[in-house]
Amino acid sequence: MAAKFRNSRLSVAEYAEGILQGNRVVLSQAITLVESKLSSDNALAGEVIDKIIPNSGNSLRIGITGVPGVGKSTFIEVFGQYLVNRGKRIAVLTIDPSSQRSKGSILGDKTRMERLANDPNAYIRPTASGSTLGGVHSKTRETILLCEAAGYDVILVETVGVGQSETSVKDIVDFFLLLMLANAGDELQGIKRGIMEMADAITINKADGENMRASNIAKLEYKNALHLFPANPNGWMPEVLTCSATENTGIEEIWELILRFEKLTKENGSFDNNRKEQNLGWMEEAIKYHLETNFYEHEAIAAALDGIRSQVSQRELPALTGARKLLDLFNGR
Amino acid sequence: MAAKFRNSRLSVAEYAEGILQGNRVVLSQAITLVESKLSSDNALAGEVIDKIIPNSGNSLRIGITGVPGVGKSTFIEVFGQYLVNRGKRIAVLTIDPSSQRSKGSILGDKTRMERLANDPNAYIRPTASGSTLGGVHSKTRETILLCEAAGYDVILVETVGVGQSETSVKDIVDFFLLLMLANAGDELQGIKRGIMEMADAITINKADGENMRASNIAKLEYKNALHLFPANPNGWMPEVLTCSATENTGIEEIWELILRFEKLTKENGSFDNNRKEQNLGWMEEAIKYHLETNFYEHEAIAAALDGIRSQVSQRELPALTGARKLLDLFNGR
Repeated sequence: MAAKFRNSRLSVAEYAEGILQGNRVVLSQAITLVESKLSSDNALAGEVIDKIIPNSGNSLRIGITGVPGVGKSTFIEVFGQYLVNRGKRIAVLTIDPSSQRSKGSILGDKTRMERLANDPNAYIRPTASGSTLGGVHSKTRETILLCEAAGYDVILVETVGVGQSETSVKDIVDFFLLLMLANAGDELQGIKRGIMEMADAITINKADGENMRASNIAKLEYKNALHLFPANPNGWMPEVLTCSATENTGIEEIWELILRFEKLTKENGSFDNNRKEQNLGWMEEAIKYHLETNFYEHEAIAAALDGIRSQVSQRELPALTGARKLLDLFNGR
Repeated sequence: MAAKFRNSRLSVAEYAEGILQGNRVVLSQAITLVESKLSSDNALAGEVIDKIIPNSGNSLRIGITGVPGVGKSTFIEVFGQYLVNRGKRIAVLTIDPSSQRSKGSILGDKTRMERLANDPNAYIRPTASGSTLGGVHSKTRETILLCEAAGYDVILVETVGVGQSETSVKDIVDFFLLLMLANAGDELQGIKRGIMEMADAITINKADGENMRASNIAKLEYKNALHLFPANPNGWMPEVLTCSATENTGIEEIWELILRFEKLTKENGSFDNNRKEQNLGWMEEAIKYHLETNFYEHEAIAAALDGIRSQVSQRELPALTGARKLLDLFNGR
């Protein structure tokens, strides 16, 4: 009994029931279960997901990316409150690459979005992220499903625009919003190349006070730039807006734009197609993750990997020979 | 003897010697060997690569991408001749996604680049491409090494800007050139989103005659757009040029730009770092390719895959449950 209490694991039925009732404590426990690295937890988490999946899928999933300093937390606090005031129940999931620097900001987010966090119709969850090999994405996808089953109808997935995480957020959301600043200069260096072309909309944040004019110029520049990009296969032409989270301006326009996007893509079928492809992609990624984890955690591989990587990197060993050596070790040859 | 002749396979030493002597017939045979799907050929190809690798790596590897109709073949013919006239020995490798439509253009390329093909200092090789799972890239990388060992000092890797191939070309070249057209409109739809931000330079081709003015406007527009993109970690600011392959204008400027790029990135170390990362990426990709091929070609997986994919796509089965079912089949559970 004490052991059970210490693990604080519920039964599949208890998790499912609590989630479907919108019980935030149970939802949080289920997310912790999903994020757990224990294989016993993984099996249980799988059963929970299987159980709640018929009740998932009904939200609008919105990815929000921007470099540190762009004002993501403030934006989400304001945007989230706007949605709650319109009768929405929203969940905010923050993914963060597992760097020391950003670990601070994960913990900070919940505090910074204090008003939103205290709203009964909003649920904020920082996603702990330790693994790199696809783990982040799988867990966030499952967390989205749990939140949907708990009745949240808008899911905001926040990522910092650094490193590899933005591409994957595009793979798990319906709409991808990029927050930018006018005259950002060096700050922009944190954004991965190729991200701008992925965005369904760019919003210039902090368009207020003395920054107003520069923001409008930036808006025009980005608009012209987006116009040159290859067309989106879903028929959506990405747009550029300005807003000020601190002055609460431009927020409604963003939501209206997202609703236009939703209408267009639902009518032409690309919303549903995107979800289908994301599901297949998720399955393939999970398989790849399992195969690679199995490989790289193999004792003989773990022992030999650093040496071979160093030889390949220095061109002492051809890359394919390095791969062959590792594969032979893996296959016990 | 007859069997050996039919297979027309040489010994490792014969391949290596022929390649190092710059024998084009042997080089072509070695590339065919590298592209072969027979496992006996793969082993032999690996030995050949191991043998010639000390003589590889000394070229400048240039990726050239553009949609069909942008004038890639004519551009490469003219650019190639310019390089040959400057004393370079060049190899042209064309990768093409394995669609019926593009198979025609692969075969057409060699004919269209007739003058270049007849130049003793140029070698043109269309890369047959059938597989999707990373196979294309591995083979092209090995082909690059073979061409380098055969003494070619500029390698032009051509891809059509459709589908998935452009991202991978970025992973195997030192410099990535995107060919565009002014007023391209619908043609641009063939380019994958995210590619523009990957380019080290954009060249507006067909900047001649009545098209001159529109090309200069497009140049300015792209220049402004590139300026908004995140900075390149290697310190290079992508540039936009115009050229006319048919009128042989702007070609020298492109080469000078590439030389500036080479100088900058060699001086700041990013040229070498990029090659190192590409080698490690190649090894990881080869491992992933092997693991996934092994998985998807497994009898039980091949039999069950379509059914499970269809269930996952229709949301009758959660993606992770689909993955688990397949992994259990693979592990014989």
